[in-house]
Amino acid sequence: MIERLLKVTENIWKQYYSHPFVKGIQDGTLDKEKFRYYIIQDYLYLEEYAKVFAIGLAKAKSLSTTRLFSGYIDTLTGGEMDIHRGYMGKFEVSKEELDKTSRSLDNLSYTSYMLRVAYEEGEVEILTAILSCAYSYEVIAKNMIKNNPSCIDNAFYGEWIKGYASKTYEEENILLINTLNQLTLEYTEEQKKHLEDIFISCSRYELAFWEMAWKN
Amino acid sequence: MIERLLKVTENIWKQYYSHPFVKGIQDGTLDKEKFRYYIIQDYLYLEEYAKVFAIGLAKAKSLSTTRLFSGYIDTLTGGEMDIHRGYMGKFEVSKEELDKTSRSLDNLSYTSYMLRVAYEEGEVEILTAILSCAYSYEVIAKNMIKNNPSCIDNAFYGEWIKGYASKTYEEENILLINTLNQLTLEYTEEQKKHLEDIFISCSRYELAFWEMAWKN
Amino acid sequence: MIERLLKVTENIWKQYYSHPFVKGIQDGTLDKEKFRYYIIQDYLYLEEYAKVFAIGLAKAKSLSTTRLFSGYIDTLTGGEMDIHRGYMGKFEVSKEELDKTSRSLDNLSYTSYMLRVAYEEGEVEILTAILSCAYSYEVIAKNMIKNNPSCIDNAFYGEWIKGYASKTYEEENILLINTLNQLTLEYTEEQKKHLEDIFISCSRYELAFWEMAWKN
Amino acid sequence: MIERLLKVTENIWKQYYSHPFVKGIQDGTLDKEKFRYYIIQDYLYLEEYAKVFAIGLAKAKSLSTTRLFSGYIDTLTGGEMDIHRGYMGKFEVSKEELDKTSRSLDNLSYTSYMLRVAYEEGEVEILTAILSCAYSYEVIAKNMIKNNPSCIDNAFYGEWIKGYASKTYEEENILLINTLNQLTLEYTEEQKKHLEDIFISCSRYELAFWEMAWKN
Repeated sequence: MIERLLKVTENIWKQYYSHPFVKGIQDGTLDKEKFRYYIIQDYLYLEEYAKVFAIGLAKAKSLSTTRLFSGYIDTLTGGEMDIHRGYMGKFEVSKEELDKTSRSLDNLSYTSYMLRVAYEEGEVEILTAILSCAYSYEVIAKNMIKNNPSCIDNAFYGEWIKGYASKTYEEENILLINTLNQLTLEYTEEQKKHLEDIFISCSRYELAFWEMAWKN
Repeated sequence: MIERLLKVTENIWKQYYSHPFVKGIQDGTLDKEKFRYYIIQDYLYLEEYAKVFAIGLAKAKSLSTTRLFSGYIDTLTGGEMDIHRGYMGKFEVSKEELDKTSRSLDNLSYTSYMLRVAYEEGEVEILTAILSCAYSYEVIAKNMIKNNPSCIDNAFYGEWIKGYASKTYEEENILLINTLNQLTLEYTEEQKKHLEDIFISCSRYELAFWEMAWKN
Repeated sequence: MIERLLKVTENIWKQYYSHPFVKGIQDGTLDKEKFRYYIIQDYLYLEEYAKVFAIGLAKAKSLSTTRLFSGYIDTLTGGEMDIHRGYMGKFEVSKEELDKTSRSLDNLSYTSYMLRVAYEEGEVEILTAILSCAYSYEVIAKNMIKNNPSCIDNAFYGEWIKGYASKTYEEENILLINTLNQLTLEYTEEQKKHLEDIFISCSRYELAFWEMAWKN
Repeated sequence: MIERLLKVTENIWKQYYSHPFVKGIQDGTLDKEKFRYYIIQDYLYLEEYAKVFAIGLAKAKSLSTTRLFSGYIDTLTGGEMDIHRGYMGKFEVSKEELDKTSRSLDNLSYTSYMLRVAYEEGEVEILTAILSCAYSYEVIAKNMIKNNPSCIDNAFYGEWIKGYASKTYEEENILLINTLNQLTLEYTEEQKKHLEDIFISCSRYELAFWEMAWKN
C-alpha cells in the first residue's frame, strides 16, 4: 500500500524537500523566530494529533493496533516529546505562552481534517492519515542529511534533524507502514483509492503547514 | 448570544461585504466562469454541510432541536436546493461533472472543521458552527440590495441574491438564532467564549471560501 | 448477504414468532396495558433509532445511501409514525407522560448498542444493525396473518399488524435489503462475519425487547 | 457532585454488597468456575472500557483531563492489569480462549452504553460513566474487609480484594472524584440531573453484571 501512497503524492513530497523552510533547517540558515513560531504551532498540532491516535484506539479491531495507538498516546501526552521539549526550553516558551497562542488556520484545518477522518472512518484510514505526517518527517530529515551531511552537527537545528532521522523514529514508522500494508492486503481497488485520497489530502495539509511556518 | 458572536467577528464579516467576489455579484460584473466554479464547490460543500446537521440530530437533546436539524436535512438532501438547482441547470453541470470535481482544500478544511466540531461537541456548538455560514449569506444578500437595489433584477445573479434575501431564508435563520439564544441562557462565560471561538473559526473559513472562489 | 444474516439468527427469530407477547397480538388476547407499556417504550426507542439513521447519513458514501437514511429520518422525526400516533391517541398518552417515562434498561441497551455501532462503524454496518429491527417486524406481522388470517380485522391490534404487513413497509425493507446486498458484494469473509455478529446482537436485543414488553 | 451521584444510586449500590456473588468472594465460598467466567468477561469488559477512556482523551479540554485519561489507557492496554493477569494465570486462560469467548449480552450492553455516552457527550459525562464502575469496586472491596477482615488472607480471592482495596486504587479514584467535582462546579441543575441519569444507568448495568456472573 505504501508504494501507491507515495506514488500519488510524489509531486507534493518533492515540494517539501525544496521548501525554503525545510532548506533553511538543512542549511542552518533558517531565521530562529520563524522556527520558534513553527515549533509552537507544531506543539499545538501534536496535542490534537494525540486525539487522532485516541480515536484510533477506540476503533482498533486487534491487539496489535490497540498497542500501536496506545504507544503513541503515551508518548504524545506523557511529556516525552523530547524534540519539542528541547526547543521549548531553548526558546523559553512558557506554559502560559502556549495556552495563549492560537492555532493558525492552516494548523486547525490539518488537525480538523485528521480528526474528521478519525471519527468517520476505521483504523486503517486513521493509520493512513497519521502516516503522511509521521513518515514525511523521517524522509525529510534523512534527505537533509543526504544533501548536507554536516547538518546534524548544527548547534541549533542538528537536534531536530537527528531526532527525525533517528533509529527509534524510523522503527516507529516501520511499524506503522507494516501494519498498514498488512491490514490492506484484502482491500478492494475502491478502498485503496480512498486511502490515496486521504493520504493526498494530508500531504497537501503538510505542505501548507511548511508554507504557514515560512510565511509567518 | 448572537450579539456577542457578531461582535467578535465584525472585522471578518466586513471583509465579506467588500470582497471582490461578493461585489462582483452585487454589481453583476462577476466573471461567470468564476461563479460556475464557486457554485459547484458550494454544492459539494452542502453535501457535507448536511452531515453536520445529521450529527446535530444525533446529538439533539429536545424535540425542537430534533425538528430543526431534521428540517434542514430534508431540504439539503432532498434535492430541494432551489438556488443551486437553478444555476446547475444554467451552467449545464452534469451529475458526472459533480462526481469528478474535487473539493478544493479550502472547501475541505471548512467542512472538516465543522464535522469535527459536530463529532466532538453538543447541539449548541453545532448550531453555532452552522449559523456562521447560514446567517452570513442572508446578511451579505441584504447588504447587496442596500448598496445596489437593482441588483435583484440582474438576469443572472438576481436569483442568487433574491434567494438569500428571501423571507423563507430569513425565517430559517431566525429559528436558528432564537434556538441558540434560548439554549445558551445558562451558559457560563467560559462556554460562551468557546462558542465565540467556533464562530470566529467558521467566519475565517467563510472568508477563505470567498477568496478561493475569487482566486480560482 | 441477507440469507447469511437470516440463517445465523434463525433460532432467535423463531422465538419471536412463538413469543407470548407476539402471539397475544396475533390472537387479539394481549392485555392492553402490556401493549400500552410496549407502545410507549417503542416510541422512545424510535427517538433513538432516528439517531442511528442520522449517523448513517453522516457516514453515507453515496447519494443512494444518503437518500435512504434521509428518508427514514424524515419519517421518524416528522411525526409521520402513523402506527404509533394512532395507538398513542387510543391510549391517551400525553406529551408529558412520554417525557416522564424512562427508557427501560433493555430499551436503553438495544439503542445504545446500535448507536455505538453507528459511531464506530460505516454505512454498511449501520444498515445491518437497522435491518434486524426493520425487517423482523415485517416478517412477524406477515407470519401472524399466515397463522391467523383474520387477525388484521381485530378492532384493536389489526392496525398494528396491517401497518407492518403493508406494501409500503415491505418496499422500505426491500430497499434496505437490496442496498445491503449491493454494498457487500466485495466484502471479505471476515467483514461478512462481522456483519453477522452485529445482526445476531441486534436480534438478541430484539428478543429481549419482546421479553421486556411481556414481563412488564 | 459525588454525594449527589451516590445518593441517587444508594439503593442500587446496597444490592452490590448483599449480592451472592460479592458475598461469595467476601466469604471465600464462591464457586471458582463462576469466578473464572466472571474474570474472563471482566477482561473483555476492560478492553472496551479502555476505549471509553480513549474517547475521553479525544474530547479532553485540559491538560489535567488529558493526563487522567491517558494514564488509564496506558494501564488498561499495556498489560499492566495485575489483578486480571494474576487470575488469568491461575485459571490458565489462553489468548485463544479469550479470543473465542463472546461478550455476554449484559457485558455488551454495559460497554455499549458507556461508549455511546462517550461518543455523544463531553469529558465530564464520560468521567461520570467511568466513575460508577471504578469507584464501586473500591467501596465493595473495603466493605468486604469491614464485614470480614480476614477475607484478604483468602488464598484465592484475597488478591482480588486487596487489589481493589489498595492505596493505589484508592488514589486513582480520588483523582477521578476530585476532577469530576471540580469540573461540575458551574454545572446547572439540569446538567447535574443528566449526570445523575448516567450514573444511575451505569450502576444498573454494574448490578446486572454481578447478576450475570452469578447466574452463569
